[in-house]
Amino acid sequence: MIPFKLSDGLIEEIELLIDSKSDSALRMKMEDFHYADIAEIINELNFEHATYIIKLLDSEKTSEVLTELDENIREQILSNLSAKEIADEISELDTDDAVDIIAELPEDRVNEIIAQIDDKEHARDIVELLRYDEDTAGGLMAKELVKVNENWNVLTCVKEMRRQAENVTRVHSIYVVDNDEKLKGRLSLKDLLTTSTKAQISSVYIPKVDYVTVHDRAEDVARLMSKYDLEAIPVIDELGRLVGRITIDDIVDVIKEEAEKDYQLAAGITQDVEADDDVWVHTKARLPWLLIGMFGGLGAASIIGSFQGAMANPILLSFVPLIQATAGNMGVQSSAIVVQGLANDTIRGELFKRLGKEFILGLINGCAIALVVLIISHFLFQTSYLVSATIGVALIAVIIIAALVGTFVPIFLDKKGIDPAVATGPFITTSNDVFGILIYFTIAKLILGF
Amino acid sequence: MIPFKLSDGLIEEIELLIDSKSDSALRMKMEDFHYADIAEIINELNFEHATYIIKLLDSEKTSEVLTELDENIREQILSNLSAKEIADEISELDTDDAVDIIAELPEDRVNEIIAQIDDKEHARDIVELLRYDEDTAGGLMAKELVKVNENWNVLTCVKEMRRQAENVTRVHSIYVVDNDEKLKGRLSLKDLLTTSTKAQISSVYIPKVDYVTVHDRAEDVARLMSKYDLEAIPVIDELGRLVGRITIDDIVDVIKEEAEKDYQLAAGITQDVEADDDVWVHTKARLPWLLIGMFGGLGAASIIGSFQGAMANPILLSFVPLIQATAGNMGVQSSAIVVQGLANDTIRGELFKRLGKEFILGLINGCAIALVVLIISHFLFQTSYLVSATIGVALIAVIIIAALVGTFVPIFLDKKGIDPAVATGPFITTSNDVFGILIYFTIAKLILGF
Repeated sequence: MIPFKLSDGLIEEIELLIDSKSDSALRMKMEDFHYADIAEIINELNFEHATYIIKLLDSEKTSEVLTELDENIREQILSNLSAKEIADEISELDTDDAVDIIAELPEDRVNEIIAQIDDKEHARDIVELLRYDEDTAGGLMAKELVKVNENWNVLTCVKEMRRQAENVTRVHSIYVVDNDEKLKGRLSLKDLLTTSTKAQISSVYIPKVDYVTVHDRAEDVARLMSKYDLEAIPVIDELGRLVGRITIDDIVDVIKEEAEKDYQLAAGITQDVEADDDVWVHTKARLPWLLIGMFGGLGAASIIGSFQGAMANPILLSFVPLIQATAGNMGVQSSAIVVQGLANDTIRGELFKRLGKEFILGLINGCAIALVVLIISHFLFQTSYLVSATIGVALIAVIIIAALVGTFVPIFLDKKGIDPAVATGPFITTSNDVFGILIYFTIAKLILGF
Repeated sequence: MIPFKLSDGLIEEIELLIDSKSDSALRMKMEDFHYADIAEIINELNFEHATYIIKLLDSEKTSEVLTELDENIREQILSNLSAKEIADEISELDTDDAVDIIAELPEDRVNEIIAQIDDKEHARDIVELLRYDEDTAGGLMAKELVKVNENWNVLTCVKEMRRQAENVTRVHSIYVVDNDEKLKGRLSLKDLLTTSTKAQISSVYIPKVDYVTVHDRAEDVARLMSKYDLEAIPVIDELGRLVGRITIDDIVDVIKEEAEKDYQLAAGITQDVEADDDVWVHTKARLPWLLIGMFGGLGAASIIGSFQGAMANPILLSFVPLIQATAGNMGVQSSAIVVQGLANDTIRGELFKRLGKEFILGLINGCAIALVVLIISHFLFQTSYLVSATIGVALIAVIIIAALVGTFVPIFLDKKGIDPAVATGPFITTSNDVFGILIYFTIAKLILGF
C-alpha cells in the first residue's frame, strides 16, 4: 500500500482550509484519512486549528483521533470542550479507550463528564475501569467482550452472541461463565463455525483458558501474551469473576513503551521526550543526567588531584581517557545484557555463578585489550616498562571491576523492586569512570611507588 | 493465573526422568505444559536430553516446540532427525512457522525434507515462501487464510469458509478476491455473524482494505500494523494477487527484536547475545566494541601527548574525565533521540532546523553545566581564572559539538541506508571523547597560550 506520509505541504494546505473556514473541503479531505493519520496531522497544528478540526468532524471519527493524539495536545483540546462534548466523544469509544482519555482529568470534571453519558451501562463500566492503576491488567482491559453461560445451549448462545457482538469491535474468543459470572473456559469462533447448533455449551467449551487477574502488572501481561501468542486474554477479579478482556493491540503499545523507556534510560534521558518536543522539555529530560556525569567528572578530578605522584607524571595522566572509556563501555555492556535478561525473564541461577562468569569474561577481554595497548603504547609512546605494567594491570583490573559492577547493580536493583534499566546509561558509566580512575592511580601508586 | 516458572528443581526432575527412561511419566509431565514452556525447558537441557524429548512427544506438540527453541539448539536437534521426521514436524505447522524452521538448513537437505511432505499443497506453499527474504512481508506471511470470490453468494461463501477455516488457526478477516485472485476487499467475521445469508458477496464486502506487498520491509509492516491497530494484514504480489497474510503475533516478535537490537547496539553489543550464552559468544559480541573504545582512548592519549603545554599543566589534565564524560553523555542523548524519532517516523522537517535546535539545546545545557563546574572548581580546586575560563568555554563548545554530531550522524546514516542505531553507543561515545579532548586542548592553547 502507499503509506500515509505527513508533509509540510499537507499541513499548510490544511491550515489554509481552516483559516478560510472551508468546512466542506476540510471534511472531504479528512474523509480519506485513517484516524491515526488525522491524529498525526493534528499533532502538528496549533491549538486553535486542532480544536477547530475536532469540533468540525463527527464524534464517530474524532473520538478515535483523540485516543491517538499526543497527551499534552489532547489535554489542551479537552480543556476547550464542554463536558457534554467530551461525553459524546467517549460514548463512541470502547471503555478502555474512553478511560485512557479522561483518566488524567481532575476528578470533578470526570464526574461531570460521566453524568453526561446517555448509555448508563457504558458509564458504569467506565467508572469501574477508572478504579484501576493504568499499569495493571485492570487498567489495560476493556469491558467489551462476548460471554455466554455454560448452561445455555448453542442456539441461545448464538442469538445472545450476535446481540453482544454489536458492541465489540473484535471478537476473538467467546468466554464461558457460570451462574456466578465465574470464568469457566472459552469457545473459539472457529469451533462455532464448524459445530452443530444443537450442542450444549457445557459439552463443547474448552475448559483450559489463560487469564490474568485485575492487579497483575501490565508488563507481566505483555510477557505472557507474547510468549503464548495470545491475541486476547480474559481478566478476572479476586473472586474469579470475568470482568474484562485485554487485546493484543494494547499489549503492542505496552511492549513499545517498555522498550522506549529502557532505551531512553540507557541513553540518559528521562522518559517521555520526543524529537519534536521543545528545547525546554529536552533540557528538563537531559540536564539531570548530564549533571550526574558532571559530578562524576568532578569526582574524578579530585581523585586525580589527591594523587600527588600522578600529577607529576603526565604520561600516566594521558592514559586516563583510555581507562575511562574502557571501564565505561564494559560496564554498560554487562548491565545491558543483565537488564535485557531480566526483561525476558532468562536470568536464572546463582548470583555468584553469574559474577564468576563475568570475572572470567573480564579477564579474557581485559588481557586482550591490555596486550594490544601495551604493544601500541610501547612503540607509539615509548612508555617505560613500569608505566606499561601499570597501564596493563590497571586495564585488566578496571575491566573486571566494571563487568562485576555492571552485572551486580541491575540484579540488586531488581531484587529491591527498582527498575533495573536505570542501572544502564550515565549512572553506570559515571560510577565506572570514578571507580576506574581510583583503581588506576592506586595501582600506579603501588607499582611506581610514588 | 499462576505463571510457569522454570526452576533448577524442575530441570533436574526432567533430566532424571530421561536418564531412567520413564517415558510415560515424562509424557504425563509434559502434558500440562504449554509448548512455549517446553521450549524453555529444552533450552536448558543438553543435546541428548533435548533430542530425547523431541523424539518422545507427538509431532503435534513438538512441532510447535521447535518454533520456540533457541536457534542454535534447534539446529543441533534438527541435525539429529531424519528428513522424514522433520517433514512430519513441519507438516503440523502453519507455512510461515514451517519455513522459519527449515530456512537455515542447507539447500539439499531442505529439498529432501520437502519431498517427504505428504500434503503436496502444503509443500508447494512452503517452497513459495522460502523464496522471500526473512526481513520482508513475504518472509513473515503465512499462506493460511480464508478467501472468497466476489462473485459467490453468501451461502457458497459460508460453506467454502468452513472448509478453509479447518486449516487456519485464527480467522481474522475473510478476504475477497476476483477471478484473477486480485485482492478486492474484506468481510469481517462479525458482519458475517450479523448478515443475512441471502446477500451477494459483491454487495456486502468492504472495498477499503489495508495491505502490504511481498517486498515491503518487515519493519514497515510492523509500523503500519501497530499504527493502525491491525491484527492481520493481507499480502499481495506485484500483480495485486492475494498471496498471504501476516498476523499480529509475528509483528510482536518483529517489534521486540527491533527493540532488542537497538538496545544492544546502544550498549555496544553485537546482536544475538543472551545472558546465558557462553563466555566465547560474549567475548565475540563485546570485544570488537571494546576495541573501538580502546583505539579512541589511545587516540586521546596521543592528542594529549601532542600538546606539550598541556602536559606541563596537571590541573588541566585532571579535568579531562569531566570533559570526556560530558561530551559522551550529551552525544548519546542526542543520537538516541534521533534514532528513536527515526524508528517512530517522527523526524521531519529541515536538517538545519534540527541542528539549530540542538545548537541552542547544547548552549543552554553547556552554560548550566559550565556555571556549576566553575563555582565548584573555584572553591574546591582553586583553579586560576584562566584555567577556569578554559574549562568553562571548553565545556560549552564540547557539549554543542557533541549534540550536533549526535544529531547529524544518525540522520546521515539513515539517508545512506545504514541502520542509524549503530550511531549510538561506543561509536558515538568514542568519537565524542576524541573530539572533546581535541577541542579542550585547542581552547586551552588559545586561552593559556602555551
